[in-house]
Amino acid sequence: MEYPSFFDIAKEYKVIMLDSYGVVKNHKGLIEGIPNTIDWIKKEGKAFRLLTNDASRSQEQQKESLGRLGLKNIDLHEIITSGMMAKQFLEQKITSGKIAYLGTENSAEYILQSGLEHIAVSDIDMDNIDDISAFVFLDDEGFDWNTDINKTVNLLRKKTMPVILANSDKYYPVAKHDVAVATGGIAKLVESMLSKKFIHFGKPDSQMFMYAYEGLIEEYGFIDKKDILMVGDTLGTDILGGNKFGVKTMLVLSGNTREENVDINIKSSGIIPDYICRSVIE
Amino acid sequence: MEYPSFFDIAKEYKVIMLDSYGVVKNHKGLIEGIPNTIDWIKKEGKAFRLLTNDASRSQEQQKESLGRLGLKNIDLHEIITSGMMAKQFLEQKITSGKIAYLGTENSAEYILQSGLEHIAVSDIDMDNIDDISAFVFLDDEGFDWNTDINKTVNLLRKKTMPVILANSDKYYPVAKHDVAVATGGIAKLVESMLSKKFIHFGKPDSQMFMYAYEGLIEEYGFIDKKDILMVGDTLGTDILGGNKFGVKTMLVLSGNTREENVDINIKSSGIIPDYICRSVIE
Amino acid sequence: MEYPSFFDIAKEYKVIMLDSYGVVKNHKGLIEGIPNTIDWIKKEGKAFRLLTNDASRSQEQQKESLGRLGLKNIDLHEIITSGMMAKQFLEQKITSGKIAYLGTENSAEYILQSGLEHIAVSDIDMDNIDDISAFVFLDDEGFDWNTDINKTVNLLRKKTMPVILANSDKYYPVAKHDVAVATGGIAKLVESMLSKKFIHFGKPDSQMFMYAYEGLIEEYGFIDKKDILMVGDTLGTDILGGNKFGVKTMLVLSGNTREENVDINIKSSGIIPDYICRSVIE
Amino acid sequence: MEYPSFFDIAKEYKVIMLDSYGVVKNHKGLIEGIPNTIDWIKKEGKAFRLLTNDASRSQEQQKESLGRLGLKNIDLHEIITSGMMAKQFLEQKITSGKIAYLGTENSAEYILQSGLEHIAVSDIDMDNIDDISAFVFLDDEGFDWNTDINKTVNLLRKKTMPVILANSDKYYPVAKHDVAVATGGIAKLVESMLSKKFIHFGKPDSQMFMYAYEGLIEEYGFIDKKDILMVGDTLGTDILGGNKFGVKTMLVLSGNTREENVDINIKSSGIIPDYICRSVIE
Repeated sequence: MEYPSFFDIAKEYKVIMLDSYGVVKNHKGLIEGIPNTIDWIKKEGKAFRLLTNDASRSQEQQKESLGRLGLKNIDLHEIITSGMMAKQFLEQKITSGKIAYLGTENSAEYILQSGLEHIAVSDIDMDNIDDISAFVFLDDEGFDWNTDINKTVNLLRKKTMPVILANSDKYYPVAKHDVAVATGGIAKLVESMLSKKFIHFGKPDSQMFMYAYEGLIEEYGFIDKKDILMVGDTLGTDILGGNKFGVKTMLVLSGNTREENVDINIKSSGIIPDYICRSVIE
Repeated sequence: MEYPSFFDIAKEYKVIMLDSYGVVKNHKGLIEGIPNTIDWIKKEGKAFRLLTNDASRSQEQQKESLGRLGLKNIDLHEIITSGMMAKQFLEQKITSGKIAYLGTENSAEYILQSGLEHIAVSDIDMDNIDDISAFVFLDDEGFDWNTDINKTVNLLRKKTMPVILANSDKYYPVAKHDVAVATGGIAKLVESMLSKKFIHFGKPDSQMFMYAYEGLIEEYGFIDKKDILMVGDTLGTDILGGNKFGVKTMLVLSGNTREENVDINIKSSGIIPDYICRSVIE
Repeated sequence: MEYPSFFDIAKEYKVIMLDSYGVVKNHKGLIEGIPNTIDWIKKEGKAFRLLTNDASRSQEQQKESLGRLGLKNIDLHEIITSGMMAKQFLEQKITSGKIAYLGTENSAEYILQSGLEHIAVSDIDMDNIDDISAFVFLDDEGFDWNTDINKTVNLLRKKTMPVILANSDKYYPVAKHDVAVATGGIAKLVESMLSKKFIHFGKPDSQMFMYAYEGLIEEYGFIDKKDILMVGDTLGTDILGGNKFGVKTMLVLSGNTREENVDINIKSSGIIPDYICRSVIE
Repeated sequence: MEYPSFFDIAKEYKVIMLDSYGVVKNHKGLIEGIPNTIDWIKKEGKAFRLLTNDASRSQEQQKESLGRLGLKNIDLHEIITSGMMAKQFLEQKITSGKIAYLGTENSAEYILQSGLEHIAVSDIDMDNIDDISAFVFLDDEGFDWNTDINKTVNLLRKKTMPVILANSDKYYPVAKHDVAVATGGIAKLVESMLSKKFIHFGKPDSQMFMYAYEGLIEEYGFIDKKDILMVGDTLGTDILGGNKFGVKTMLVLSGNTREENVDINIKSSGIIPDYICRSVIE
């Protein structure tokens, strides 16, 4: 099927927001041609933001990692992660006790650097949980799935506390047609075991969009939401989130959503992007 | 059981946000003593916002209605409704066609005044639906439940379009121990029939909180979220929304949540308020 | 698209089970040619059962109603309804108090004739509910949706009791492309308001299949499940139920599932019929 | 709190059905006194059945394992497992291709011995999946959670096929207050990733009850369901299943449901046992 060119559509907008995985990079690394797209956005005088449901790396580490892949023309303040939202929440909301987490030591270090102690699930002494005041699902790596998911279930059965999910994605692409279970999937399993709902961060929730929007207004003065285009590869996060926040949305077929499933996915979810393009490089 | 006084807690905060139904008023009218509470908030130099999941009345009508009940010391800009959020979304997102709705003519008039035509479900000619471009659940009144809910289901089966829920509340209190099904409940029924998820506005979503926060910053300059107290009677909307937005939360027992169920409700939902008080008048 | 003939497939089976609505009859009455199909089944010496998620009429009334439509060659014992299952449950399980119900007086009379008193929701005195021992969702007619659904919600909030759903269907077809909300949809709304799960009867649950199977064995001696064909128009009830019970399943396109949606519906639900035919008359 | 004696209640029934885990045994082995209880049941001339949501061991292995623990007075035909139901389904429903599974080699061997080949997820060549005709979740052991759950998700994304869950339990007790994620939890995770519903076997579904009931009738002639008592430690499986099948139900506090949570659990689930006892040994 024929799809319109990303550039033909994007040129009508003042702000371009891109999802990262499935739009800018994929399992093989940077999507070829992405540096040109970012250059084009900037040369055209458009504002740019990268909105990523990723809680495994700090803003700095994200920039560094994209740089290593060959994408060097992104500024620190142009990167917005769901981890940043979770960090903000924890700083404002949890003021005593220890924060328990499931994820890598690295993600714990930057997200939980709010003065409070943090402790990996594997290090928790289950007979001594009185001082644990919150729980965070940070990442799908850095722990033993079998042992530590079970330990998490038992901890949260024993003590009622705020539980935060720093990245709501249920899966992420790892090969052309393959995905892997992400933190959001693991949290969903635990939610289902406990019959509870945790506090979710990341798209489709509004926080990252709002944060981006506030920053844009600070930088450029008033911006009409009609002038913002959100581009993503996933209906349930990028497109739903963008639609809900009130900006225009473009679905690209370079990631989670495969061309042969677009129609089924839109019909069965009821989430309708304003545009569909093959990728942001054509 | 003994609960702390609202005033003792509220005095530590710079901004007080109150839910309306179950906090400020109930099925019998204004909760006695509320004007004093609002006076106290203002005399103490605190900022004030009323956050209500109500899409049946415009900001002006809300103010007028509260005034008629005897609450006269609330300013127009202090009132924030989920209907305002839905209105904003529709203005920015739907630019052609007609907007179909389920609700009263009055709610349709103020929410859908964006230049686009609107049409009540009962007036739709089902053989002529090509120009209908969006659907809004506005209110639980103003239509025949049996006929028009069925017509809504059939319309949305026939045409894929953005569906907006202007008020996510599933029920509202109508007597001391009684509730009534609200728009959110009806939308849930239709979602379940179609196996789709609509776009929800109102608490617990972040939009109303963000809107309030932006307005406060414009009015008062920078405000730390730690200085904001959100007070509500419902765990799943007021408290979850406040927790998620990162402000302090107080559950009051003057509405949806009954004293004998507080513990069960908190344990089984996992939504934990920072404070519990009997009401905002003690 | 070309579909195989029902007769070519059915001739390989010893038992034919048909769903009623969407297979044998539709909104206009009997599907033309159905008496021939039933005659053929019987002349071929096959056993026959009609499995219907209907709790509004007794077995006798079902037979009478089909006869009035022109289908006279069905025996009483060949008709199995979800209402019969609910009746059985109530007789065995509820032994004291009154049974409250939402539905027509007629459906209440035959289902609740177990010696216990029954009372329509509209007749309940909400200050006097101590003797109500169970609740049954019987039918989508016979009550005022707005008033009585609200009353039901409040009754079930006030008293914990077994709640039975005599027909799980969420909707039923009323015109070529139109559906109407059924009892199952209303119960779903109430379940969602109360965050509870009721006891569901009717396909896809196994009870009706088991009941039919036991009767067949009594009548004919041992029957291999491989020799049974279940035919229905709805994936989530007829086909899922038949698959789960272990018989062969055929989806027909004369009811709920429209030809243009078959593929989407199967893919997105993961419920796979063994055969797809246009109807049971071709 | 005081609870009635199991024996005082059980003596009024002709058939006693016991759940296994949490009733007869726990993480430490056999619950002390169980052989006496089984002896009593048999000496009193009551019929006995053990209904277990376990698909990891065959009937013979179950008997052997209980024998090793010290429970020797249970006959082979008195043991009914969810694995037996899944086996029956596969034999009747899947007649060609290979059956893929997640679980131990042992469980695969007895369940999938229907003449068809079976293949562990870890052994599947993802480029060669055309001959895989069904998928079974058998057990929470016997595979690498991280690798093989991801592989399962990708297999089921690539090919639509019947997916069977041989044990619906989401968790099982492993210590006094601790649980472990069971097959049902893992299947739930995969269902949530794919937005699909699999075919569930085991309580609360009716199949095991029906199978037991049919066997009892064959052995003893007609049995009134009112004379059957189902005893279990879990509201959502044992009690819901028993209630739905129409027999009397007893919740015991020797397993999943802890005394301090009984009231909350019953209220919030709406699943009401006919009796509550501390255990089946008092």
